Amino acid sequence: MKLTPIGIIHSPYTEPAGTPIQPTVAHGAEGTVEVFPEFAEGLQDLEGFERIWLIYWFDRAAPARLRVVPFLDPVERGIFATRAPCRPNPIGLSAVRLLKVEGNRLRIAEVDILEGTPLLDIKPYAPALDHFSIARAGWLEKVWAGRETAVADARFARREKGEKE
Amino acid sequence: MKLTPIGIIHSPYTEPAGTPIQPTVAHGAEGTVEVFPEFAEGLQDLEGFERIWLIYWFDRAAPARLRVVPFLDPVERGIFATRAPCRPNPIGLSAVRLLKVEGNRLRIAEVDILEGTPLLDIKPYAPALDHFSIARAGWLEKVWAGRETAVADARFARREKGEKE
Repeated sequence: MKLTPIGIIHSPYTEPAGTPIQPTVAHGAEGTVEVFPEFAEGLQDLEGFERIWLIYWFDRAAPARLRVVPFLDPVERGIFATRAPCRPNPIGLSAVRLLKVEGNRLRIAEVDILEGTPLLDIKPYAPALDHFSIARAGWLEKVWAGRETAVADARFARREKGEKE
Repeated sequence: MKLTPIGIIHSPYTEPAGTPIQPTVAHGAEGTVEVFPEFAEGLQDLEGFERIWLIYWFDRAAPARLRVVPFLDPVERGIFATRAPCRPNPIGLSAVRLLKVEGNRLRIAEVDILEGTPLLDIKPYAPALDHFSIARAGWLEKVWAGRETAVADARFARREKGEKE
């Protein structure tokens, strides 16, 4: 199970503190996905999709913890009940808006991802596959109700000396 | 970028042919997620969620191709405009229904995943994070409209001799 980066995500956010924590509160922030040329052929037909899932590697996340205090609530939670980046496999998932496909570059908006993040996969977002009628969404339900903004701080950022960031 | 399986997904489906291709057409099929005991602490607070994202490794997928003819349409598409398993990084994504958390085992339903699949991550599903209002969903829009059933065949299955499946 080895991963190969298929591209790099470019965004206005160079450090965790101040980065939107989800696309739903990214207020249109624009970015670019640079797909490496050897994978560009796989982008065909993507332009018909208004939104795409990006699957990426949280390369600047702190080491994995199994319990975290998430950004929006003061209560410690199991890591798998949160979307925090310091996970056993630091895989990120964001449904960003696709503005345009220009060769091997995707112009995107509503970006909640750090500049320079390694991209692992792209999948199309479709209501027929991704919308489920949900009655209960645990602790997230209350903290997200009516929320229009939410940015990260540095609590889940890697601390080691000499690393980028 | 190395992955560590955090568990194993158990399902009624032992081979690709006949397996539902998405949770939305899995008609309640039940399964179990066995999270390895060393990660069980991370499951706290998960039970409040009606649905969870499973991120997993398509361990029996054919080698990556950049263009595929998907299950529901006779037209060849770029791999990133499909959810087919033979991707450069064979990472699967399914929002399954969470029925119950029993220690380190999750009882799940609406499963579209093969028996024995390695689990990489679990994230909570929440409408506040995962529902987007979408006007265009590319080629998927037409083929999924009103569809109630869709199962795989063996076209994306690994072919090498002597391997499981």
